[in-house]
Amino acid sequence: MFKAVSSEFLVPFDDSFSLSEVSASPSASFDVNKDYKKKLEKVVEDMHDLQRILYAHDKHALLIVFQAMDAAGKDSTIRAVMSGINPAGCQVFSFKKPSSTELDHDFLWRTNRCMPERGRIGIFNRSYYEEVLIVRVHPDILEYQNLPDKINFDTIWQERYESIQDMEKHLARNGTVILKFWLNVSKEEQKNRFLARIDNQEKNWKWSSGDLKERAHWQDYMQAYEDALRATSKPWAPWYAIPADDKPYMRYSVAKIVKKTLESLNLKYPNLDDEERNNLNVAKEQLLNE
Amino acid sequence: MFKAVSSEFLVPFDDSFSLSEVSASPSASFDVNKDYKKKLEKVVEDMHDLQRILYAHDKHALLIVFQAMDAAGKDSTIRAVMSGINPAGCQVFSFKKPSSTELDHDFLWRTNRCMPERGRIGIFNRSYYEEVLIVRVHPDILEYQNLPDKINFDTIWQERYESIQDMEKHLARNGTVILKFWLNVSKEEQKNRFLARIDNQEKNWKWSSGDLKERAHWQDYMQAYEDALRATSKPWAPWYAIPADDKPYMRYSVAKIVKKTLESLNLKYPNLDDEERNNLNVAKEQLLNE
Repeated sequence: MFKAVSSEFLVPFDDSFSLSEVSASPSASFDVNKDYKKKLEKVVEDMHDLQRILYAHDKHALLIVFQAMDAAGKDSTIRAVMSGINPAGCQVFSFKKPSSTELDHDFLWRTNRCMPERGRIGIFNRSYYEEVLIVRVHPDILEYQNLPDKINFDTIWQERYESIQDMEKHLARNGTVILKFWLNVSKEEQKNRFLARIDNQEKNWKWSSGDLKERAHWQDYMQAYEDALRATSKPWAPWYAIPADDKPYMRYSVAKIVKKTLESLNLKYPNLDDEERNNLNVAKEQLLNE
Repeated sequence: MFKAVSSEFLVPFDDSFSLSEVSASPSASFDVNKDYKKKLEKVVEDMHDLQRILYAHDKHALLIVFQAMDAAGKDSTIRAVMSGINPAGCQVFSFKKPSSTELDHDFLWRTNRCMPERGRIGIFNRSYYEEVLIVRVHPDILEYQNLPDKINFDTIWQERYESIQDMEKHLARNGTVILKFWLNVSKEEQKNRFLARIDNQEKNWKWSSGDLKERAHWQDYMQAYEDALRATSKPWAPWYAIPADDKPYMRYSVAKIVKKTLESLNLKYPNLDDEERNNLNVAKEQLLNE
């Protein structure tokens, strides 16, 4: 089973994770003189090659989950990190408000259907983690889920963590490599980016008045993130808490972890056995003698 | 969370299940003078009414899994027990050899997609249990699943039971009632039914020479059934081992358990609150004054 690659941003597996230990600003490794855009380009090129081998090797799928507060840069990170990958081997799914068909099923159903196949990379822009983030901050959403029993708020989040842990373990055992990125933006930086969306006409379309309402719940969200990341960061499904206040550094940090993870799988183009190689030679001979 | 209704055919939850304690012949409760076809009709009528309430109540889904050796009567039981139900509230899925798209995912993916929505009954004619039955008897099938690691036969079946247990628990917590029927046919009776398929031209289409090959693995299959039922019969996802050598008795026994289960949920048509009832009265007045 896949084991997480090390990183300064890795969320520990021993229930010790605390928000007080992570920062939204670039870490000490940040070098103001480095061109992180340029560095990202190089990493994306390597990822492109690694993805081709992932596809040929055809034993692992790679699931990449992005979760973050509004304006942290999920969409732009997905665009920047994945734009070099062959789209035939990569699918992006965004999970917004569930449809009534989706609400009619258990809360893992809608994302399960979208899981990447072997050989492919699946990106979740938001995910089943919404069920322990926005739903936890706004528990009245649970009413729309038509759960059969009276909801016990002492146990429901723990049960949801358990459902998620169990599913991720099952996926990992069966070949899916899972990477989860929390893009950790500060409240101050979110304010700057919101103001830019309002002031800059080209960015107006990104603005929704609902964003301000969610911002008012900042502390509740932080508590929900802390609890969720602490409960569900596992060697086979690690969380990485990525500083998000500097976008080029954030994107490069994400890409580097994806690349290192793909490298750690020791992927190879499939080897032909003697019989298959013989078949190739027979075919070649036949073609040449045509 | 749903709790299994009692039955003489219920597989115990304490790991004590043994094939030596169950029989393919009708149990002592069998009354040769009773018309089980007639009795079934009455039960199916009740189920029809219960399903309408399940649909209006809209909090539970009912998943019914059928597993059995060839010619045990899965298809005819589904037909006999479910034919009275409104098809709008009932979906039947048969799981045969997986497609290459399905093999490209984890082994629970193809059945997860077909899980019944709240208010509906979903019937699985074979299911994810094939992964610990036919795949266990023919472990070379695992090669087609392209699993990333070298397979460890000391742990793989236990891991698959665990994946199944975890998923069923998650479903149950979120409102799915799970019933699993093993139609227990004897080797002798299977022989009679195979001979009938060969001798009776109208039944020839049901015959496949592969059936005889699987029959040769009878003991291996019995071991796989015993282990799977023992590991996965739980209060929230019970197995029932139904004697299958007498078809009318078998069908009646299955229907009775489905009916008792639906009754145990204490389903009710949704109650309107005062405001909603007031809205009804306003609407009525408006219609009458048109």
